[in-house]
Amino acid sequence: MAKNEKQFVEEITPMEVDFAQWYTDVITKTELVDYAPIKGFMVIRPNGFALWEKIRDYADNLFKETGHKNMYFPLLIPESLLNKEAEHVEGFAPEVAWVTQGGNKALEERLAVRPTSETIICQMYSKWLTSYRQLPYLYNQWNSVVRWEKSTRPFLRTSEFLWQEGHTIHETKEEAVAETLQQLETYRKVAEDLMAMPVIVGQKSESEKFAGADATYTIEAMMHDGKALQSGTSHFLGQHFTKAFDITFSDREGNLAHPYHTSWGISTRLIGGLIMVHSDNRGLVIPPKMATTQVVIVPIAANKGGVMEVVDKAAAELKAKGISVNVDDRDGYSPGYKFNDAEMHGIPVRLEIGPKDIEKNQALAFRRDELTKSEVSLDNIADTVKELLDDIQINMYNKAKKYRDERTYAANNMDEFIDIIENKKGFAKVMWKDNAENEAKIKALTGATIRVIPFEQENLGDKCFYSGEKADHMVIFAKAY
Amino acid sequence: MAKNEKQFVEEITPMEVDFAQWYTDVITKTELVDYAPIKGFMVIRPNGFALWEKIRDYADNLFKETGHKNMYFPLLIPESLLNKEAEHVEGFAPEVAWVTQGGNKALEERLAVRPTSETIICQMYSKWLTSYRQLPYLYNQWNSVVRWEKSTRPFLRTSEFLWQEGHTIHETKEEAVAETLQQLETYRKVAEDLMAMPVIVGQKSESEKFAGADATYTIEAMMHDGKALQSGTSHFLGQHFTKAFDITFSDREGNLAHPYHTSWGISTRLIGGLIMVHSDNRGLVIPPKMATTQVVIVPIAANKGGVMEVVDKAAAELKAKGISVNVDDRDGYSPGYKFNDAEMHGIPVRLEIGPKDIEKNQALAFRRDELTKSEVSLDNIADTVKELLDDIQINMYNKAKKYRDERTYAANNMDEFIDIIENKKGFAKVMWKDNAENEAKIKALTGATIRVIPFEQENLGDKCFYSGEKADHMVIFAKAY
Repeated sequence: MAKNEKQFVEEITPMEVDFAQWYTDVITKTELVDYAPIKGFMVIRPNGFALWEKIRDYADNLFKETGHKNMYFPLLIPESLLNKEAEHVEGFAPEVAWVTQGGNKALEERLAVRPTSETIICQMYSKWLTSYRQLPYLYNQWNSVVRWEKSTRPFLRTSEFLWQEGHTIHETKEEAVAETLQQLETYRKVAEDLMAMPVIVGQKSESEKFAGADATYTIEAMMHDGKALQSGTSHFLGQHFTKAFDITFSDREGNLAHPYHTSWGISTRLIGGLIMVHSDNRGLVIPPKMATTQVVIVPIAANKGGVMEVVDKAAAELKAKGISVNVDDRDGYSPGYKFNDAEMHGIPVRLEIGPKDIEKNQALAFRRDELTKSEVSLDNIADTVKELLDDIQINMYNKAKKYRDERTYAANNMDEFIDIIENKKGFAKVMWKDNAENEAKIKALTGATIRVIPFEQENLGDKCFYSGEKADHMVIFAKAY
Repeated sequence: MAKNEKQFVEEITPMEVDFAQWYTDVITKTELVDYAPIKGFMVIRPNGFALWEKIRDYADNLFKETGHKNMYFPLLIPESLLNKEAEHVEGFAPEVAWVTQGGNKALEERLAVRPTSETIICQMYSKWLTSYRQLPYLYNQWNSVVRWEKSTRPFLRTSEFLWQEGHTIHETKEEAVAETLQQLETYRKVAEDLMAMPVIVGQKSESEKFAGADATYTIEAMMHDGKALQSGTSHFLGQHFTKAFDITFSDREGNLAHPYHTSWGISTRLIGGLIMVHSDNRGLVIPPKMATTQVVIVPIAANKGGVMEVVDKAAAELKAKGISVNVDDRDGYSPGYKFNDAEMHGIPVRLEIGPKDIEKNQALAFRRDELTKSEVSLDNIADTVKELLDDIQINMYNKAKKYRDERTYAANNMDEFIDIIENKKGFAKVMWKDNAENEAKIKALTGATIRVIPFEQENLGDKCFYSGEKADHMVIFAKAY
């Protein structure tokens, strides 16, 4: 192996050696992200932002198809507004960054850099809403929020992150609950259909729900190291905020009533999930639907007569089929270097075309997910590659689901539970009697928390694995990011 | 006129009575924007944000077509970074909002809520850049910035606004200048081709250029009241920042060199321009390319047999042609109310279809820009309406250009100049000898500033209208937002 063929592979620490270092190597060496001059903040570089654009555009389209519109609320929230809903302020106040000076003047009231926007949005909704005829309010905004975090890691937990926050208002409780669940289903589509990232869909326990919510719903994914990543949440907020902010409307009977409220969000943390679900020791593995470049064509012996003509023709055919393709015709780099470069960046398919391939009217097709090569005919190459990309998308989802299912174990007692969390490093599925105190004890002992009460229940027995009482449902415990 | 037919029209103060109040009425009553709980900040409501999405998507597409990629830099900038480029900090420091507390801790160093991101971006570029092979850097970001303003007006000048900021780095001065001008041309397209808003393209005077730039280029538009709106700027920053932040690269000869730098931006202020160029005393007038709803169909006597069938068929034909259409079939509102509602919201075309129209196989088409009605055949109605929309787009541009040209006057001396600025309320075009002191004197006396040194020059004589010296060029003076 020539020096420049080895260099990319060697730079990434194997995940078996040090998972955290592997993650850091992958995201920095592929130039997704860098550390900002302020601790805990990140710079999302063009390669990383392209992934966010895929998520944002896909989700935004689904939001609009279901009748939502975008809007924009200010970055800064007066302290008095933040304080209006008691549970909410208790949950967020310790993480707030405060603006105390505007221009050369000290401000009379501190302004919070928004950690989330329920309070300022409700303040305005209370001004705008008068009649049931205006409802539902189906509004969303894309922005960044700041939460002062002590321990941070790019994408997964940072003091500033990009996200969207939907804030809807409804006449009835039923409509609001239906909205909450509809948006959860949208998030499942983003994770599974776009990102090939399988998720467990369900509800949060009381201890893990959003500060100020009646109920929080979640999609949870398993990372390569067996930890969970909360990948999107949808909150049924009931009337907590609509009462605290005195949002009222005259209902169909002409009575003044408080409406029902939801909020829901996904963030750049999904990019961290994408990496920790799919990528490997060679670098990124990007599912075709998320890839800015789906196919790289590497010409072999490009200076030989006829090679570039065939390469350019194949590229044009792929483009005409809607496939995004890059011809890597850089001078001064060997094919081996280009192979490693494309593999590290996770490009789903590589086509190699050289004089010997052209003689046989074929190309060599390398698929990043399986690291396998096959010969494909130059006739109908666009159709063949299209099928290959579709197969990679599905295969990546199936592989990740198999990985998760194989690392999800039933526990009947604490010994088995600890073995799963500590040694097997996976998800523990257990029968559970709701009890916040017991939940806290388990967390203190093992670091694992209830990630989700899955909608899709399994019956593992009648009794709570911990208390021995009659169980309420099956839940998933895991360590989490 | 029935009560509910009058109410919309009456709510808007005529622009001849009070232009500022007219503007406020239009933007608030059409629910584009509202005042936020903090003075000087705005809430962009869904109707307003839809306009921003049109601008953003159109511009973003042009950026990408010319090879630019998006990224995201942190909201907060350490004070020490902001202080690195002397002219820059002098320009922005008085307007900065400062974060002094993170969570429950006082920060060791104040953090600026970004007023613009040159400093933090250059800090990272200096870390990333090593070789000419990496250049050019063609990067952009969409975000919000905060500048503590004393006197604010929604969209036009607010303490927070949405924008994009492009930041590019080039090997040579020539390339950087070409980039600066290319992006200015992109902004001209956004203003003229998308928004039907004619602009004068050119350079800023030394006094009006960006803090830290070698040269600033601008597109300037005339508002209905004869004032100018700076609608987009593109800066050639030379090596000011690349030297201050020690950005270097090894060039083609292997020498260490400082690259050349540009930045460029457009913002939500464009929405203010859109309104003050096109709208009238009935409310918004939106050019078809900017309209979320291009056509509203109002059924007349909708309960009569066959009316809704014809309406729905026409709507389907328009949609199939790519025209966005809304059938206003709301119960409990008269046609007159619906007409006024659609007019106030600036929908470019209204179709009225009732039993009498159907008998004649026609619809009545009302165009918002000219307030005229015509009969159109129901046969090929989609083609007819498409042509009408294209004509409205062009007509709105031509009308606005005629308005501006008629209110742009040559001045040969200060008497004429003052008459133009104070009485005629227009743009003054004058021959000018560059002189910052004279510029300041004219500003102090009249409130007018040099808006632009147009690329398209006219020769109005040889001598400066103010100093009598040999003139350098023709410039445009005006009062400005």
